Amino acid sequence: MDPRELQIEANSDPNSDTHVYHLALDIGGSLNKLVYFTKDDDHSDDGEVGISPRNTLEKSKASRNHPVLKGKLNFKKFETSKINDCIDFIKTMKLHLGDRQQQESPGNHPISIKATGGGSYKYADLFMERLGITLDKEDEMDCLVAGANFLLEVVDREAFTYMADHKQFVHIDKNDLYPYLLVNIGSGVGMIKVEGDGEFERVSGTSIGGGTFWGLGKLLTKCKSFDELLELSYQGNNRAIDMLVGDIYGGMDYSKIGLSSTAIASSFGKTVSDKKEREDYKPEDIARSLLRMISNNIGQISYLNALRFGLKRIFFGGFFIRRHPFTMDTLSVAVNFWSKGEAKAMFLRHEGFLGAVGAFMSSDKHGLKELLIKQVAQQSPTKLSFSVDKIRSPLDGELNGDESIECSVYAA
Amino acid sequence: MDPRELQIEANSDPNSDTHVYHLALDIGGSLNKLVYFTKDDDHSDDGEVGISPRNTLEKSKASRNHPVLKGKLNFKKFETSKINDCIDFIKTMKLHLGDRQQQESPGNHPISIKATGGGSYKYADLFMERLGITLDKEDEMDCLVAGANFLLEVVDREAFTYMADHKQFVHIDKNDLYPYLLVNIGSGVGMIKVEGDGEFERVSGTSIGGGTFWGLGKLLTKCKSFDELLELSYQGNNRAIDMLVGDIYGGMDYSKIGLSSTAIASSFGKTVSDKKEREDYKPEDIARSLLRMISNNIGQISYLNALRFGLKRIFFGGFFIRRHPFTMDTLSVAVNFWSKGEAKAMFLRHEGFLGAVGAFMSSDKHGLKELLIKQVAQQSPTKLSFSVDKIRSPLDGELNGDESIECSVYAA
Repeated sequence: MDPRELQIEANSDPNSDTHVYHLALDIGGSLNKLVYFTKDDDHSDDGEVGISPRNTLEKSKASRNHPVLKGKLNFKKFETSKINDCIDFIKTMKLHLGDRQQQESPGNHPISIKATGGGSYKYADLFMERLGITLDKEDEMDCLVAGANFLLEVVDREAFTYMADHKQFVHIDKNDLYPYLLVNIGSGVGMIKVEGDGEFERVSGTSIGGGTFWGLGKLLTKCKSFDELLELSYQGNNRAIDMLVGDIYGGMDYSKIGLSSTAIASSFGKTVSDKKEREDYKPEDIARSLLRMISNNIGQISYLNALRFGLKRIFFGGFFIRRHPFTMDTLSVAVNFWSKGEAKAMFLRHEGFLGAVGAFMSSDKHGLKELLIKQVAQQSPTKLSFSVDKIRSPLDGELNGDESIECSVYAA
Repeated sequence: MDPRELQIEANSDPNSDTHVYHLALDIGGSLNKLVYFTKDDDHSDDGEVGISPRNTLEKSKASRNHPVLKGKLNFKKFETSKINDCIDFIKTMKLHLGDRQQQESPGNHPISIKATGGGSYKYADLFMERLGITLDKEDEMDCLVAGANFLLEVVDREAFTYMADHKQFVHIDKNDLYPYLLVNIGSGVGMIKVEGDGEFERVSGTSIGGGTFWGLGKLLTKCKSFDELLELSYQGNNRAIDMLVGDIYGGMDYSKIGLSSTAIASSFGKTVSDKKEREDYKPEDIARSLLRMISNNIGQISYLNALRFGLKRIFFGGFFIRRHPFTMDTLSVAVNFWSKGEAKAMFLRHEGFLGAVGAFMSSDKHGLKELLIKQVAQQSPTKLSFSVDKIRSPLDGELNGDESIECSVYAA
């Protein structure tokens, strides 16, 4: 909805803060993710709205009192270290303001915005200071799971498998979705057993994640960005860096335990015996070994945790992946190898925005899920798929990750 | 036994190769381990020898026909990349020769030596070329398990726990030893479920091992050796390198999921957001983070595999550890943390020589185990403990790992 309509609600309840429901933040250790709603001014619609079984009667009544606004959910990310760029963006887009488009002081009613991630604590003062808004904090795990469940249940062509350069969308039957293992790969990695809406448990994790890839990559190459390092890994070959089974066995397999000569015996193990210095190794080979080491490890630990709880499906999210074919391939192969084909690795198109979507959803007044579920029921999935003009696919070389979903919300 | 006595046997059977039973090799990806027997000339003993229940009648008969020689099992390691230093050592010590002390050509009967590890294939030709000996290859896993079982069952004060700088020897009742998880940390890591003598299965492993620590450490610091890098890690602090939970949460814990502010959220994650170059980080801090990252990861994957098979005891071996207090502490804490105290991490004093001991044992004519078991039964454990003058304890700063065990063998 646009700020003016928001203000109607704000003024209608002078005792409460002004809630800006069309913006939510997920401020992680490395990246700051934004989700915000923009209205398509031309198709408003006040028609009766169907209720999905998941919604309570109370909520449905509340919903009926609000007009429906069609528009887009927009996704944008910034580096957390450049938090001020993000604040400038919000300021320029006036995403944080109610009807106070001309003045920037928050006035008597401090505006509050839904936010999750550690940065919602760390940067709370900065947002107050620079934008005069309070961050309405939501728990990170709650948001992650809410976002994943929403995207998997509601958004068309959200989940897909990726193996041997073959991408295949998976139809998710929401009655057959749970339980699953959610592996969120951010700076670190969290592993969550999800059994339903709000029913989940963090069962494991590892500190060897996206921050390790980029951190070690930054120390070992001259790359200036995560994406540059990822790009570089495309051209690399890990055989120059890793000690393979064949390197130990003089080119032979160690067939007795099913290890082929090309299996990695020791990541970075070949740099031990060599007389070479760091400068003698190709940065692309280093990037490739790093990516392979970290993806393998995450795939293995994920499988071992899926095994513990008998979970057949592992959904990988988080901004480490960026729909990078080699990363997805390595994760899939690792899960397939260790589980002997029992478990399946799947990916989400909005992988990096699970927490932000969850924070956005956390204000139920949108009735977003309700509406979208109805639209799905109406067999019009196109309404829910990405607006093509805004898709940024890494398969086209782009890794920006900013996207939008066409959707409808209630004017709260 | 000494070479002369060996020759007696060699000549007694002109149709067979000459077997040098007093030397065995385990040639790994990074390190080449030697085990060899030296006789104490002064106490020979031809007395009747008791038979342990584990030995077959046939073997026991064979054993009785041989005199008993008291002496020492000696342990020595070389870098595999300096394989020629090892060959020079064998040459100088004449470990490879029978009575041919003066001449170095193997003559008509090519001498063969028990060897395991990938290098026993890779360097077979080199040993023939330089020493005129053939390597009698034994399977790596067989030797690893045989060596671990032997040391745990027979050698006094072999196993110990290490936590919070407290080392405690564990008495192993061999009737209560199995099953256990054997985690061998060499260049890479192998995880083996051991259920008895010769009863085992390789259940998992990881490529993030000792070769990764030394390989990445070599690329990131100016260290010239694995031990130098390990030493360096003592003085380091990982907080300067790793992204801690507190760094993300503005100094706060993420208590809801039991993560303290000092827990590592992302290994090397702090080097992402910083403007610093590699030169701005202290090498000791980098070494510390590397060691912590790799030890944590091995501890976690070990625990997850112990859990799969309901194994309560995890024995860690391999040359990565080197009785390094911080490494053992990290592995113990990881196993304890993930298993909530259910599983226990234990270490072996001859951690690095499991495979070499197994290869040495693989020629049963020693009756070594038989004899030592008898000596244990005779309540004379001192005979089996290390000869004090040769202990090299890392707690005294030394990490050489060369040691000897007093023992007796049959003159084959």
